[in-house]
Amino acid sequence: MIKVEEAKNLILKEVKTLDIEEIHILESLKRISAQDIYSPLDIPHFDNSAVDGYALKSEDTKGAESNPKILNIIDEIPAGIIPKKSIKSGEVMRIFTGAIIPKGANAVIMQENTEKLNHEVKIFKELINRENIRFRGEDLKKGNLILEKNTPLRASSIGILASIGISKIKIFKKPIVSILATGDELIEIEEKLILGKVRNSNTYSLASQIKQSGGIPLILGIAKDKEKDICWRL
Amino acid sequence: MIKVEEAKNLILKEVKTLDIEEIHILESLKRISAQDIYSPLDIPHFDNSAVDGYALKSEDTKGAESNPKILNIIDEIPAGIIPKKSIKSGEVMRIFTGAIIPKGANAVIMQENTEKLNHEVKIFKELINRENIRFRGEDLKKGNLILEKNTPLRASSIGILASIGISKIKIFKKPIVSILATGDELIEIEEKLILGKVRNSNTYSLASQIKQSGGIPLILGIAKDKEKDICWRL
Repeated sequence: MIKVEEAKNLILKEVKTLDIEEIHILESLKRISAQDIYSPLDIPHFDNSAVDGYALKSEDTKGAESNPKILNIIDEIPAGIIPKKSIKSGEVMRIFTGAIIPKGANAVIMQENTEKLNHEVKIFKELINRENIRFRGEDLKKGNLILEKNTPLRASSIGILASIGISKIKIFKKPIVSILATGDELIEIEEKLILGKVRNSNTYSLASQIKQSGGIPLILGIAKDKEKDICWRL
Repeated sequence: MIKVEEAKNLILKEVKTLDIEEIHILESLKRISAQDIYSPLDIPHFDNSAVDGYALKSEDTKGAESNPKILNIIDEIPAGIIPKKSIKSGEVMRIFTGAIIPKGANAVIMQENTEKLNHEVKIFKELINRENIRFRGEDLKKGNLILEKNTPLRASSIGILASIGISKIKIFKKPIVSILATGDELIEIEEKLILGKVRNSNTYSLASQIKQSGGIPLILGIAKDKEKDICWRL
């Protein structure tokens, strides 16, 4: 009888690295990456607003809690649009979540903390510098390793790949794992159970475990307790 | 604005139970059972040997550690075969793992604790009653609930279903979950990133999470921030 360690080494010696294939990221959940991927850009790609509200200079909100400030609305910046103006003291721009922070602004007040007048807005909260801004590179910096070779793809990494513009990815092919049940006492699921016989159940739980682990089960059936019958099936 | 709890109830009010389909157990991993399943039989289905060795009366091994016993081999029982003889005091039968325990025997000695002579075997270990026997119904009794409706199928339950002769099972169909990304700032993965734009990454991480949770994602694309464009896609 050989030892477990020895048997393991004998098997591993024969195991080759699997071939690589390229697939769409939508198909890549739980597959194993065959490449390191580094971010080609900063994410977010530009300073943007974390809320719907007004971009402004935080200095202009000093003491607003006890003494609300009134500031001029000079423009509106929807998401996806490049601001044309820049902000000076006493001014705000209406801004929406994800929109570019205009030059001159260093904070965004949530609309819930304001009251819109005609062309002005009343500010009820004092802001600190950088408040409610998502800064360029805050989530991910250009050059960061975002996916390591030999690791499984998770839903979050798939989202990150999309955000840096990668729709296809190299992964390792799934291993095909053969299952051979052996034993004169074994019968198939649908066969009638008679005394002394046992239904082949391990094949089905093993096949499910192989799938769960990312492999493809190949069911070879039941071999009788004879060397010939076992060898013929392998 | 409506509250989270209210929104949840509005959604759940519209959710219907999914249709049922019947599939092979090999395809059933992580699917949700649509039926309670009870075992129609005891597992193991008969008292059988847990080891390769000799079936005997445990009383005949008393004191064997200090004073080895010599017993007569009267027959051999391979797995899958019904024993023709029964055991009397002083007798053993050669038995293999999974084989039926012959009448008269109440224990099995592992072959490692014996030495085979010609038609006899030398016993070096004292056994207790029931030692190395897997008894009928030890794993599962007839009538036991083995799979509950509304629970996901695991590899172990799939093995148990096979062992009781069930190859097909009723499960709920997978829910189809639509994903609509909205926002004027969004562009598709392959599009060139320009200032103010953001790649649609949530669609891909959400689609992966839907798959992971057992659903089928249906990607509806990106809608502009206009009611018409959103409604047209739904």
